[in-house]
Amino acid sequence: MCQSVLVSIDERGAVCVLGTGLIGGSVLRAAVDAGYEAFGYNRSADGAQAARLDGFDVSGDLPEVLSRAAAADALVVLAVPMPAVAPVLAEVAAYAPECALTDVVSVKGPVADAVRKQGLEARYVGGHPMAGTSESGWAATDPELFRGAVWAVGVDEGTRVEPWSRVVRLALDCGSVVVPVVAEEHDQAVARISHLPHVLAEALAAAGAGGGELALGLAAGSFRDGTRVAGTAPDLVRAICEPNAGALELVLDETIEALIAARDALRADGTLGEVVEAGYRGRSAYDSRAQWEITGVLPGADGWLDELRRAGRRGGVLRAL
Amino acid sequence: MCQSVLVSIDERGAVCVLGTGLIGGSVLRAAVDAGYEAFGYNRSADGAQAARLDGFDVSGDLPEVLSRAAAADALVVLAVPMPAVAPVLAEVAAYAPECALTDVVSVKGPVADAVRKQGLEARYVGGHPMAGTSESGWAATDPELFRGAVWAVGVDEGTRVEPWSRVVRLALDCGSVVVPVVAEEHDQAVARISHLPHVLAEALAAAGAGGGELALGLAAGSFRDGTRVAGTAPDLVRAICEPNAGALELVLDETIEALIAARDALRADGTLGEVVEAGYRGRSAYDSRAQWEITGVLPGADGWLDELRRAGRRGGVLRAL
Repeated sequence: MCQSVLVSIDERGAVCVLGTGLIGGSVLRAAVDAGYEAFGYNRSADGAQAARLDGFDVSGDLPEVLSRAAAADALVVLAVPMPAVAPVLAEVAAYAPECALTDVVSVKGPVADAVRKQGLEARYVGGHPMAGTSESGWAATDPELFRGAVWAVGVDEGTRVEPWSRVVRLALDCGSVVVPVVAEEHDQAVARISHLPHVLAEALAAAGAGGGELALGLAAGSFRDGTRVAGTAPDLVRAICEPNAGALELVLDETIEALIAARDALRADGTLGEVVEAGYRGRSAYDSRAQWEITGVLPGADGWLDELRRAGRRGGVLRAL
Repeated sequence: MCQSVLVSIDERGAVCVLGTGLIGGSVLRAAVDAGYEAFGYNRSADGAQAARLDGFDVSGDLPEVLSRAAAADALVVLAVPMPAVAPVLAEVAAYAPECALTDVVSVKGPVADAVRKQGLEARYVGGHPMAGTSESGWAATDPELFRGAVWAVGVDEGTRVEPWSRVVRLALDCGSVVVPVVAEEHDQAVARISHLPHVLAEALAAAGAGGGELALGLAAGSFRDGTRVAGTAPDLVRAICEPNAGALELVLDETIEALIAARDALRADGTLGEVVEAGYRGRSAYDSRAQWEITGVLPGADGWLDELRRAGRRGGVLRAL
């Protein structure tokens, strides 16, 4: 079988985005552009008003928004920072417990735990669009933010077809390709390619500034690019990275070890040792990675989740038909 | 006095570039565009031929090129990787010992040492254009590479006005602004903002690849930008970073310490600790750094080198009139 994975949703249905910052607000915009009935909630009145002034249907009244989602059988997209996930999920459980539910939070394990605590797991499928900028808030939103990006979608044990298909369809409609992945493996992977980059960017920015005006005045492309994400608001960096403390710790251990080896080699014989070759191989592997399309999996058929998991591990993606 | 620093060279004179890779070849192109009589040498016959095919006057015969430089009283620009500096300087001493001499190598202390070994220090002024890409070789050269960039120019004890003025003039004519700096402070600064970024990019690229196809498939902007310079050829990275081993070791120590503190804080209480705030402050300082023009210094007047040094330390630059 060589056909694309069928994500058969006849109607696009409604989408309800909770939190209209950079990611959530961009989902709202992209969903509207793709023809969805989409509306949202934002805690800050300023943020909600900014979205309304741009013509979007965003309210600051969470119970009201969730009641509307329940009435419209909307897909609820949780797009708040990790510290706000538990209280917002409590409201979802109270006002829209039957809605399909996904999220766009960086870590998946802690969100899944919070979802289970509210008894919402039957309708939940985790998500994580791998896109962003160092800006935040409604003003930074962009309906094209997810175009060509990768969007991780959960294929954990117990995932049901209907909410899964709706989440995949939304991600594809936003212009992304979908990588199927279970929560634990997702969190280990993003520790390496998203959270570690944040921590190293912070350490590099601090080291550069330690050289004063002369060093910052001489800084060029390698410093600019290497510290770009250190321009992200500190609270947001913490909210992204700290919930993944366990996986991040392990990869920090590994990286500290590699840097100590480089430092010791410099001291011993003036060379950087292994790190340069290993880094070049790593970047080359990244540059030559290929997205291949997963075909022939029928959502809901025996073993479909396992098939998708195995494909995702080997670089497979789901694409729009 | 509020006038620009006078770099009074009536004639542009000739420029002889030794090594026509990314940086040297781009200097050659930029110098030709700026109206200089410019010619060069490249060790590899392929590289020299590629330059000739593009209409540039590049030969593989070093004694011949240097004899021509001596006859034309050219400014000799040393643009070879650090391992080739000593042998090429020996040829300069043999064939063009009276020429004004500069270099565009990343470290300044080791080049100055090699220059002194050949007795060429009276006509030497160190240079370092802070520009580049992860590409290398003639094919990557770009006459606009230095436009808007910073070009470090030496103001070490004993620097003479005439070669200094020619080097500054060339840097300005290539479209750069000039930061005056002594070798030791330059090397400490670039350890922080150029060599450390290389090492961290390598470590990050290796850590990402350690997560296999899944991790590389999920990688987005933070990983792409944070590992960009890990795409540079390993030999070139070594040639750039390893000659600055002493300064790089110190800043690696500092960075390893910061990462260990972050890892320990994650383990102890699930937070990243100081590193996020320090990094945000550092990146903010970088984003808000201001280049102010150094004025009122007369090259050759009493204390001119010291005045330029102090200004460079505080973010001052020389601009084209």
